[in-house]
Amino acid sequence: MVPRYARPAMTALWEPEAKFRIWFEIEAHATDALAELGVVPKDAAAAIWEKGAFEVDRIDAIEAEVKHDVIAFLTNVAEHVGPEARFMHQGMTSSDVLDTCLAVQLSRAADILIDDLDKLLNAIKHKAHEHKLTPTIGRSHGIHAEPVTFGLKLAGYYAEFSRNRARLVAAREDIATCAISGAVGTFANIDPRVEAHVAEKMGLSVEPVSTQVIPRDRHAMFFATLGVIASSIERLATEVRHLQRTEVLEAEEYFSPGQKGSSAMPHKRNPVLTENLTGLARMVRSAVTPAMENVALWHERDISHSSVERFIGPDATITLDFALARLTGVVEKLIVYPERMQKNLDRMGGLVHSQRVLLALTQAGVSREDAYRLVQRNAMKVWESDGELSLLDLLKADSEVTAALTPEQIEERFDLDYHFKHVDTIFERVFGA
Amino acid sequence: MVPRYARPAMTALWEPEAKFRIWFEIEAHATDALAELGVVPKDAAAAIWEKGAFEVDRIDAIEAEVKHDVIAFLTNVAEHVGPEARFMHQGMTSSDVLDTCLAVQLSRAADILIDDLDKLLNAIKHKAHEHKLTPTIGRSHGIHAEPVTFGLKLAGYYAEFSRNRARLVAAREDIATCAISGAVGTFANIDPRVEAHVAEKMGLSVEPVSTQVIPRDRHAMFFATLGVIASSIERLATEVRHLQRTEVLEAEEYFSPGQKGSSAMPHKRNPVLTENLTGLARMVRSAVTPAMENVALWHERDISHSSVERFIGPDATITLDFALARLTGVVEKLIVYPERMQKNLDRMGGLVHSQRVLLALTQAGVSREDAYRLVQRNAMKVWESDGELSLLDLLKADSEVTAALTPEQIEERFDLDYHFKHVDTIFERVFGA
Amino acid sequence: MVPRYARPAMTALWEPEAKFRIWFEIEAHATDALAELGVVPKDAAAAIWEKGAFEVDRIDAIEAEVKHDVIAFLTNVAEHVGPEARFMHQGMTSSDVLDTCLAVQLSRAADILIDDLDKLLNAIKHKAHEHKLTPTIGRSHGIHAEPVTFGLKLAGYYAEFSRNRARLVAAREDIATCAISGAVGTFANIDPRVEAHVAEKMGLSVEPVSTQVIPRDRHAMFFATLGVIASSIERLATEVRHLQRTEVLEAEEYFSPGQKGSSAMPHKRNPVLTENLTGLARMVRSAVTPAMENVALWHERDISHSSVERFIGPDATITLDFALARLTGVVEKLIVYPERMQKNLDRMGGLVHSQRVLLALTQAGVSREDAYRLVQRNAMKVWESDGELSLLDLLKADSEVTAALTPEQIEERFDLDYHFKHVDTIFERVFGA
Amino acid sequence: MVPRYARPAMTALWEPEAKFRIWFEIEAHATDALAELGVVPKDAAAAIWEKGAFEVDRIDAIEAEVKHDVIAFLTNVAEHVGPEARFMHQGMTSSDVLDTCLAVQLSRAADILIDDLDKLLNAIKHKAHEHKLTPTIGRSHGIHAEPVTFGLKLAGYYAEFSRNRARLVAAREDIATCAISGAVGTFANIDPRVEAHVAEKMGLSVEPVSTQVIPRDRHAMFFATLGVIASSIERLATEVRHLQRTEVLEAEEYFSPGQKGSSAMPHKRNPVLTENLTGLARMVRSAVTPAMENVALWHERDISHSSVERFIGPDATITLDFALARLTGVVEKLIVYPERMQKNLDRMGGLVHSQRVLLALTQAGVSREDAYRLVQRNAMKVWESDGELSLLDLLKADSEVTAALTPEQIEERFDLDYHFKHVDTIFERVFGA
Repeated sequence: MVPRYARPAMTALWEPEAKFRIWFEIEAHATDALAELGVVPKDAAAAIWEKGAFEVDRIDAIEAEVKHDVIAFLTNVAEHVGPEARFMHQGMTSSDVLDTCLAVQLSRAADILIDDLDKLLNAIKHKAHEHKLTPTIGRSHGIHAEPVTFGLKLAGYYAEFSRNRARLVAAREDIATCAISGAVGTFANIDPRVEAHVAEKMGLSVEPVSTQVIPRDRHAMFFATLGVIASSIERLATEVRHLQRTEVLEAEEYFSPGQKGSSAMPHKRNPVLTENLTGLARMVRSAVTPAMENVALWHERDISHSSVERFIGPDATITLDFALARLTGVVEKLIVYPERMQKNLDRMGGLVHSQRVLLALTQAGVSREDAYRLVQRNAMKVWESDGELSLLDLLKADSEVTAALTPEQIEERFDLDYHFKHVDTIFERVFGA
Repeated sequence: MVPRYARPAMTALWEPEAKFRIWFEIEAHATDALAELGVVPKDAAAAIWEKGAFEVDRIDAIEAEVKHDVIAFLTNVAEHVGPEARFMHQGMTSSDVLDTCLAVQLSRAADILIDDLDKLLNAIKHKAHEHKLTPTIGRSHGIHAEPVTFGLKLAGYYAEFSRNRARLVAAREDIATCAISGAVGTFANIDPRVEAHVAEKMGLSVEPVSTQVIPRDRHAMFFATLGVIASSIERLATEVRHLQRTEVLEAEEYFSPGQKGSSAMPHKRNPVLTENLTGLARMVRSAVTPAMENVALWHERDISHSSVERFIGPDATITLDFALARLTGVVEKLIVYPERMQKNLDRMGGLVHSQRVLLALTQAGVSREDAYRLVQRNAMKVWESDGELSLLDLLKADSEVTAALTPEQIEERFDLDYHFKHVDTIFERVFGA
Repeated sequence: MVPRYARPAMTALWEPEAKFRIWFEIEAHATDALAELGVVPKDAAAAIWEKGAFEVDRIDAIEAEVKHDVIAFLTNVAEHVGPEARFMHQGMTSSDVLDTCLAVQLSRAADILIDDLDKLLNAIKHKAHEHKLTPTIGRSHGIHAEPVTFGLKLAGYYAEFSRNRARLVAAREDIATCAISGAVGTFANIDPRVEAHVAEKMGLSVEPVSTQVIPRDRHAMFFATLGVIASSIERLATEVRHLQRTEVLEAEEYFSPGQKGSSAMPHKRNPVLTENLTGLARMVRSAVTPAMENVALWHERDISHSSVERFIGPDATITLDFALARLTGVVEKLIVYPERMQKNLDRMGGLVHSQRVLLALTQAGVSREDAYRLVQRNAMKVWESDGELSLLDLLKADSEVTAALTPEQIEERFDLDYHFKHVDTIFERVFGA
Repeated sequence: MVPRYARPAMTALWEPEAKFRIWFEIEAHATDALAELGVVPKDAAAAIWEKGAFEVDRIDAIEAEVKHDVIAFLTNVAEHVGPEARFMHQGMTSSDVLDTCLAVQLSRAADILIDDLDKLLNAIKHKAHEHKLTPTIGRSHGIHAEPVTFGLKLAGYYAEFSRNRARLVAAREDIATCAISGAVGTFANIDPRVEAHVAEKMGLSVEPVSTQVIPRDRHAMFFATLGVIASSIERLATEVRHLQRTEVLEAEEYFSPGQKGSSAMPHKRNPVLTENLTGLARMVRSAVTPAMENVALWHERDISHSSVERFIGPDATITLDFALARLTGVVEKLIVYPERMQKNLDRMGGLVHSQRVLLALTQAGVSREDAYRLVQRNAMKVWESDGELSLLDLLKADSEVTAALTPEQIEERFDLDYHFKHVDTIFERVFGA
């Protein structure tokens, strides 16, 4: 976890305090269920809720000695609860606590991330509607292709992050299971009803079959999903970085008064937020492979996954939370330059209309091959003139072209609005009616 | 694609023949829709279906010249269809064909993989029921923990691969979209109804908003899902490899008569299939990162994803198909040695019952700390004797233990069946009533 | 391996024919050494060289039965050599042949790649000298920073690929070892002098200690090195893609007559080669993680690495060979537009000289903070004018600036050549005197 | 960084205090060189060393406002130095400081890691010599193969970590360069001699050509090397985990008095350290891909690498340092059970000698195929008896075998020492004379 890329709510989730609180709740709820089943005295269960407490420092001190975190925790809680503490953890194994706790943490983390996605979706939606009909050039291969609107660009990101939201909801469900099944998952020393009770109280579903641990394919799927979301962040970040390039400058990250773009070059305004997001995306994605390598634990479990999860549990969720919030800010405050978009659209001398002329020629009876050749030979002249020449002028002066199309028919193909007639259709698909 | 790790049906999906056939169908269906809308003559649409044909070699030859695969394909088809061919591809862009084709290929690949998973699930289920109550030692950290049944082990794998099946169904849905939206996704030169028609005919849903391409977050999610499945394969493969170790030998891959385990050592019978699966899992997983790196295409698209997909499209699906089938064979033919399982269970001098004695002591009023100490001091002696000493004997000779428990109470804790009383519960959870 | 991304020489290296030829040489040289040591008859060794032969199809047929490739090979060779064939492979194990063969293949692959790098270096060097003093704008964050020369850009790539060459030479040395040490590496049944003899004949060094296999850290390092080289390819490819963007267009991939950039848009000239290289870089890099996962084989070896290497051995080397050759072609044929570079340089109204004015102000006694503020306030006006305003004009009209600097002193800071005075120094560092 | 997997010396390297100290030294040395060249007053350079100071908190506060870390640092230092501070950083750009600082940090980190490797090598060497002739079974595929010594196993690890040491030395050299070349690497506003001076003072070499940044292929190579080392750690960790398995138990991690292996099962002694190392290896390796993705920065640089390096710079080096030290401890304190090794060696009824009999048969004139068949048919009986039968007995009772070999000749092949005759040779290769 790098503090500068961390926000308080998500970070708090991973603090020892929060973790031990969840442990305590799991143990206490389990003891309730054991009491209900008559396995332990009801007084003991009540005493745990009443007198139960813990101190992070004290747990650390005990762990340094016994080298086992759950035993250290139980010992510390017992110091508060007294002799009735011996009824805690009856028939359970450490992983019952650890894995159920991780499920709680990851599902809460998912809740925060889903909320982050909602905010981002909202920001994109707002900006998309604002620029629903702002003309801008569509680019394939970084080369001008045909006109789109800036709102359409954003609609694509909206749809993508909507998919990511749905994926995260599924991944959250995948991860949110409770296992209280004992040393090797047989419930030998603990009744399955304890598991059911704790699951319900902690907002989880019951893990159908655990070994000692909750199977790690669930976690692999969770982190893989975060990796996909991060990749989408990279896509939008890359778009902004391109739009802010000096030669393009169709949009810019907000640049606050007093900000300095460069210590040496006072003229600079750099897309540093989206560059940063590009790097953060790499980091979130880097959690995917170790999470997958964690799946093949030996037999009923080994503990190799644990150190990995101590890193990627906090790191991937905290970083993604930060990244989504940063991206939301970038979108909300993005400065858009419609005039510059128009200027760029016009700079190619009308080349962006080449396809329409091609189609008009074929519809007028020219073969596709000939039509392609006719348009391309004029287009290449414009291309090489760096937009000084106009495609419309050249076409009107090309006798092979005018043999098939009248000047009016050619001009008609240079109409910008023609391209936007289905924007409503797409917006309805993406944002609903 | 490595031929030895490839099966015919999946491989055929990725052959040029299959690809061009899908291209042809997309183009022909699109022309139908265009004809229906009155954009092109109905005769032309009919002619394409009637006279349309292609030859892989001829397409390759044309592509070598024009350096554009879709143009090469269209040119070749036109050689068969004649002048009416110019009505094909009207208002479409290459990616409309390429990306919709990839969606068809990946969803068909998913269908094969879902079928593979069903076969694997069936094999595991059968073996699990066969060994539902075969006692075997559960191991955490590679160390004997407590008894489980071999059926329970397999139930865990069944549940895991069931989850993988559900994930793959979701990933298939994610990937199965059709985009016929033109050069930058605006439908400028093609009616959205063409897209809807082709989607329906090809068994796809409509891509709500495409740029020039179908967004690559869908593909990233697809390959990430394959990576998770591969990781589960690795887990089961690793289990078998462990079980076949000389010192464990509780199960073995089928070893056919005439097979040679080693050119130098005639005594060898190696778990080569599951070792192979371990390697194949690494390979399937290696597709995940490039698939995620493919997401952030520039603006409305660049073509960097294409070369990646030419590798991982076939490689990841073909390899996973092969691996699932191989794993199914391993499970079906697995030779299980219940006597050896029992022998291993017994070899630790009863240490596997240590927890039950611990619990009995605490229930008899001994503090958890003292109980732990009492059991551990006897257990360590057994451990160091390599199973020569018996935990039961030592406990019965330990006066601090017998102060709390009678010999009968101690013996009662060494009952194997005690551990299996919830096997039915778990089987019902996993396999249903 | 994807045929379109493969070149013949590298591909041939990985064909069965080549592999079996290397196997044969290893076995025959080993038999020579055994004969020299008196372990087998000299006649036998001679017979193997004389009569030894193999057929790929026949080996495949035998392997289908015995399920062991080396045994199949030996059986086939024995069919040619006759009874004396039984002296082949004496005391050796399959991995002695397989791993030594892989070492030969990877070191020959490295030789091809080193040659590729030399050609690429040559192409870059030539272009760098051609444009040693061609002014172009240096960009940080995609934003105009200060002037550089196009030759300097290329010098950076030259230096980077020179480092890559040195790394590959080291990785080649790392991988080029011979192990003929028997079933578990003890030389129990084979004299170490056999290993030394084969090593020398095959151009390898002796593996100091093998288990059954050559340790896989060597291969991990090899593929990691390929991954770094691929990343450098991506950097240069990305540079070209940026330079070819419509709004930048300072350089272009060669576009051959008759080539079609887009099936729909006749005006397009896309940087498809470098986009392709970007994707290929992802693929080469994807070999790194599985190669590293291959290191931790169990005990003296398991065979999980083998399937991985059947993929990445050919794929990573063939793809990198193709990519280096393609990149060399891109560099050699790159169309550079110096006028456009100058035009872009000038388009920011002189903003690129902001630092020099800043320095001049501080040297004239203005505090760094004040100087920054003075320059920035004028620079931002120019920035917002999209280059319509001139920084020089504004500065000369800013009384706080002119209080510190005369108009002549300001103008002096707008001299382009000032930036190029150390180009020679850098070229000497990179290319030598 | 996860505190429990961090050691103080390496962690301190990455603290803000250490970083700013390096920044200060770079700036101060640069000012010295500028003074020497007459660019700035000598008094200013002296003042910086004399009065220069900084406070981490103050820098953070300033950065919160100006959003630029180097400017914040310079402002804070200026608060101490006074007006002469304006001569600091003359003609430099932030990356001159940041990248040179990172080079210092990474090369110091490498020094610590090299020292870690030396300690590990020493531990392995000591243990290897202690068990140079301790017989143990060599295993391929997890199956008994032929005898080795435990010292030979360790010699392999020694050789592997020696290679890793050499690789790290090379990677350290690769990373240890200084760039003080200004905004786009042209030395426009700073003399190359400043760079040379700072390089020398900071123990670095001069970066031949920088853009604004030191090229990231150097860092990619560095982290890739760490990834290879981590993979070797995983190999040795996996070996120990296997050796400690209940059924094998040939060696064990040290288990301290008072330690608890399991909260529920008092009999457990788990290889938790090496399992932990397996997980840590995954984490170190996870830095490799983002480091490679960092290479393709845009043009003269973008800042996407920065956030990645804020994670992986500390995380990968701190974790690897911890892992190497932990592994050294594991090796030093490893409890080895030679009797158990012998017991395991013997448990296969002599199967491990099958190859020697095979060779003896072929040398006695039996064809390889027949010899294989003869040995295999007896070996399989022993295999299936779980070591109850003896291969020697069966062979002596097999008339086809005794037709070729006398009982004495057969017995001779069951001599353990035969396998160890070249241990000295290998030790000399690995450890020197």
